[in-house]
Amino acid sequence: MKQKMIAATTLALALGASSAYAEEAVNPRLLRRFKPIRVEIDSDQNPVTGEKINLGRMLYFDARLSQNRDLSCNSCHPLDKYGADGEVTSKGTKGQRGKRNSPTVYHAAANFVQFWDGRARDVEEQAGGPIVNPAEMAMSSPAEAVARIRSIPGYAPIFKKAFPDAADPISYENIGKAIGAFERRLVTPARWDRFLEGDKTALSAQEIEGLRVFSNSGCMVCHTGELLGGSMYQRVGVVEPWPNQSDRGRAEATKSSADEMYFKVPTLRNVAMTGPYFHDGSAPTLKDAVEKMAKHQLGVTLEDNEVAAIVAWLGSLTGALPLDYIKPPVLPKDSTVTASVK
Amino acid sequence: MKQKMIAATTLALALGASSAYAEEAVNPRLLRRFKPIRVEIDSDQNPVTGEKINLGRMLYFDARLSQNRDLSCNSCHPLDKYGADGEVTSKGTKGQRGKRNSPTVYHAAANFVQFWDGRARDVEEQAGGPIVNPAEMAMSSPAEAVARIRSIPGYAPIFKKAFPDAADPISYENIGKAIGAFERRLVTPARWDRFLEGDKTALSAQEIEGLRVFSNSGCMVCHTGELLGGSMYQRVGVVEPWPNQSDRGRAEATKSSADEMYFKVPTLRNVAMTGPYFHDGSAPTLKDAVEKMAKHQLGVTLEDNEVAAIVAWLGSLTGALPLDYIKPPVLPKDSTVTASVK
Repeated sequence: MKQKMIAATTLALALGASSAYAEEAVNPRLLRRFKPIRVEIDSDQNPVTGEKINLGRMLYFDARLSQNRDLSCNSCHPLDKYGADGEVTSKGTKGQRGKRNSPTVYHAAANFVQFWDGRARDVEEQAGGPIVNPAEMAMSSPAEAVARIRSIPGYAPIFKKAFPDAADPISYENIGKAIGAFERRLVTPARWDRFLEGDKTALSAQEIEGLRVFSNSGCMVCHTGELLGGSMYQRVGVVEPWPNQSDRGRAEATKSSADEMYFKVPTLRNVAMTGPYFHDGSAPTLKDAVEKMAKHQLGVTLEDNEVAAIVAWLGSLTGALPLDYIKPPVLPKDSTVTASVK
Repeated sequence: MKQKMIAATTLALALGASSAYAEEAVNPRLLRRFKPIRVEIDSDQNPVTGEKINLGRMLYFDARLSQNRDLSCNSCHPLDKYGADGEVTSKGTKGQRGKRNSPTVYHAAANFVQFWDGRARDVEEQAGGPIVNPAEMAMSSPAEAVARIRSIPGYAPIFKKAFPDAADPISYENIGKAIGAFERRLVTPARWDRFLEGDKTALSAQEIEGLRVFSNSGCMVCHTGELLGGSMYQRVGVVEPWPNQSDRGRAEATKSSADEMYFKVPTLRNVAMTGPYFHDGSAPTLKDAVEKMAKHQLGVTLEDNEVAAIVAWLGSLTGALPLDYIKPPVLPKDSTVTASVK
C-alpha cells in the first residue's frame, strides 16, 4: 500500500497535484470503508409513511410538547441550521444549560444508537427523551405530554391518519414514532457522496489530500461507514486524557466502570456546519476539533497544512438542506382547554 | 506529517533502507501512543506481596481447583507457552470445548477489563470465573472450591501468611486475590520496549517498516498503549462483517444490542507465540490474522510485503519468559479426606 501511495503522491506532487493525479494517490481499497448515504433510512419497527412524516413534522416544531410551551425539538436541533444549535450546550425550558452538546438530527436515524451515550436504541425512542427531561423540555411525564396533545383537537384526525390501525392513536409511543418517521428522511447527500459514487471531479486536490491525511493518520478507523461515525463507541482521550473529566460518558448510563469516558463516535456529515464540537462543546472551530482529536485520540501533532487539508475535505461532507421538507408546518390550534392542561 | 515521512522514506529507500535511516521515517510523535510495559502491574485493592505470589503460584498450578482434578489455570494458560494453549478453543473438564479462544495470561493484569467481553473488572475477579464455569473447571460452586482447598492441610498456613489480617483466610475471594497477585508479575519486556526507551537499534529495518505500515493503516488506533491493545472495546467486522456471527461478544454479557459483536481489543504483546487468533480462534497464523484485521476492521487489502513487515515487527513484541517465576511449585499434599470432598 505504502509504496504505491508514495509513488502516486510523488507523481502528483511532480505534476503540481492537479485533482486528477491527486485522486490517484487515494488508496481505492480504503474507500471501501465509506459508503454513500442512504436517502431513505428505514426501520422495520416503524414503517415510514407520508402521513407519519406529516404528523412528525408538526410535532417536531410544536413547542407545546415542552412544559413552558417555549421549546420544540427544533429549538435545540434547528433544521435550517443543519440540526444543531451552535451552542456549547443547549438551553432547557427555564434557560438552564444541559450537560452535553446537542448533536445534529440530520442522519441521526442512521446512527447505531442514539444520544452521546447510546441510551436510546433508535430515533423513535430518542424522541421521547428530551420531552420529559427536566433539563430540556421538562414535561413532568409522558402522560402529561399526551394530555397536552389530546387537548389540541386538530391533532386527533392527523394521528388517526398516521396510525390508522390504532384504537387510540394519540400515545407517547406514537409521538415518538411520528417524530422518528420524520427524522428518517432528514438526509443531506453531499459532494462526498458523488465522489464515492465515482465522480472523481467532485473533490478538489486539497480535499483529496485531506482525505488521505485523514486516512493515514487513523481518523478513519472510528469515523467510518456511511456516516463517517455513528457506528461505534470510543473512549475519548485514549492517548492523552480528555481535559474535562466531569462527564463520564456511557458509564453514566450503564454504571459500568468499563464504559468510563466512552462516547458514541459522532458523524462527520455536515460537520462544518455543526460546531462547536464534542460532547462537551469544547472545540469552537473545526480546526481546533481536528487538532484535539489527533492529539487525544491518536497521539499525533498534525502540521498546519495537514489540518487545513482535513478541514477542507470535511467541507465536502456538507450537503444541501432539504428546504421544502423542513419548512415549518402550520400547527393545529389550541382548544379553550389546552392552556390549562398541565 | 506526510511530507516529512515521504521525504524520510524516499531517503531511506535511496540509501537501501538501512536501520538507522528507516528509523528516521517513523513519526516520533506517533510513538507517544505506545508505552514500555510496566514491570509491576499493581492494584490498590490487592497489594502484591511475596506471600501472596507464593500462594497464587500454587493455586495457579493446582488442578484440585477443578471438579475432576484434571485442570488448573495453567492447563488453558500454560505459562511456559506464553500463557496460551494453542487451541482454537480450550478443553474443559470433560473434554468439551469452550466457546472462545483462551487469551494469554501474560500482562492480563494490565487490561482495562478481563475476558473477551469485559465481564470481570480485574484479574482477581477473573480468576474466580473459570473455576466454577461448567464448561471449564466446573466446580459446582465457590463454596465447593473453598471446601476442596480447606481439605488440603498444607494450604492453611500458606493462606495465613498471604492474608495475615484475615480471621478466616481461606475464602473464594482470597483464592482470586492470590492468583491475581501472582498474575500481576507475569510480564515479559521485549525488544519493543528497548526501542521505545530509546535504543533505536533494537528493531530491524523491516520491523520498523512494519511499525510504519501498522500505524499508517490505522491498526494503532485500537492496538495502542503499553499493551498495544487491552484498553478498549471494538466491534469486530466494522467494515466487512465478521464471518462467524454465532458469538455476539459483549452483548452476551450486557444484554444490550448496542454491544453486539463488541470484544475487547486484545494485547499484541507476545502475539507471535499465542496463535491461533481472535475470540473464535479463526486465524491459524499471524499472517492470516493481520490480513483479516486489515480487511474486516480497516477495509484495506495489504500487499504481501506489508503483511510480512507487520508480522516481523510483531515479533519484536515477544519477550523472554520469566522461567524462574513460572516454575511449577511443589503443592501441598492431599489429606485423607481431600479426595472425598466434593
